[in-house]
Amino acid sequence: MNVYVPFAAREPKTRLADAFEPDERATFARALLLDVCDAISRTGREPTVLATDSVDCPYPVVVDDRLLTDAVNARLDSPVAVVMADLGLANAVALERLFEADGDVVIAPGLGGGTNALVVRHPDFEVDYHGASVRDHRRIARGIGTEATMVDSFRLAVDIDEPRDLVELLLHGEGRAREWLEDAGFAVQRRDGRVGIGRDA
Amino acid sequence: MNVYVPFAAREPKTRLADAFEPDERATFARALLLDVCDAISRTGREPTVLATDSVDCPYPVVVDDRLLTDAVNARLDSPVAVVMADLGLANAVALERLFEADGDVVIAPGLGGGTNALVVRHPDFEVDYHGASVRDHRRIARGIGTEATMVDSFRLAVDIDEPRDLVELLLHGEGRAREWLEDAGFAVQRRDGRVGIGRDA
Repeated sequence: MNVYVPFAAREPKTRLADAFEPDERATFARALLLDVCDAISRTGREPTVLATDSVDCPYPVVVDDRLLTDAVNARLDSPVAVVMADLGLANAVALERLFEADGDVVIAPGLGGGTNALVVRHPDFEVDYHGASVRDHRRIARGIGTEATMVDSFRLAVDIDEPRDLVELLLHGEGRAREWLEDAGFAVQRRDGRVGIGRDA
Repeated sequence: MNVYVPFAAREPKTRLADAFEPDERATFARALLLDVCDAISRTGREPTVLATDSVDCPYPVVVDDRLLTDAVNARLDSPVAVVMADLGLANAVALERLFEADGDVVIAPGLGGGTNALVVRHPDFEVDYHGASVRDHRRIARGIGTEATMVDSFRLAVDIDEPRDLVELLLHGEGRAREWLEDAGFAVQRRDGRVGIGRDA
């Protein structure tokens, strides 16, 4: 089964602009990408990075500068898996649950309605990553006569997208993105209610 | 195994004050509580509500007005489980994974470092719900010579605490809290990036 990891090679992680300098964002995004690829690799599968531009990476890379939905739909020869590049908590155990779950369409939902990871084993399924894609993907699955299997995983639900997500990486991350964050001076700080993060001056 | 569901009976869900009127908050908090108790009940176990004040509820209620940490520590006769009252996505399948997981201490981490659900089977374990409790609870487990088992569940990781959490309930909820939200006019709205929620005027 092909496992694609879509990656925005230009201007990655723009919603982290308040937390990082532009060059830091690029370094951090690459660390996340490599962590995800390593975790996939540890399940015995070979990830392929599906990038909008060339990217320096020890894993196979295919470049497709179309929008995410179009680039993925061009590669939905089943069976296929699509795992987002910013799943900083993804580990081999969580990914194995995804890959091994039964179903024509298997979805690991993300926070805020995203589809963080997906397995497709039905020739008629198509993706649509706009908006609350998890809802749309369940609807699309029903439209082709099947019911999406949902994988209940915290590790696959958290994408590292906004500053508030960084605390999850500090608390639960296992790879180089967490290490990079710590080296860059980020640490967990107690706030009102949930904890947040802070950075050394 | 006793399953306690701690519930702040006075002024519940203060961090939802921007989204709801005070009486709505109370109604909504009770709907969440009942959903959690129903889900526990569906696993064949009997929940006990551990409330700071009396609460109208079809399940057994014990009142203890101490701080959460103290009220829980007074009841850690192992084996025991503690499941937060605002886990609006918790269902029987996710809770069964928690209850059935092996380990002296089993933790379902919450977003932002919380300990959303916990099973204790070791007489020396104590809780400390302040701050990044998931980290503290892992440390406390190590201190008594064991290693906490982590349950990787999106449904147990999301507590409905802040306005941004409501979208998760609308997308993935299965009980009366989701129904109440919909009846109150809340709906999923597409925003930049992740989707949010809106309310009918």
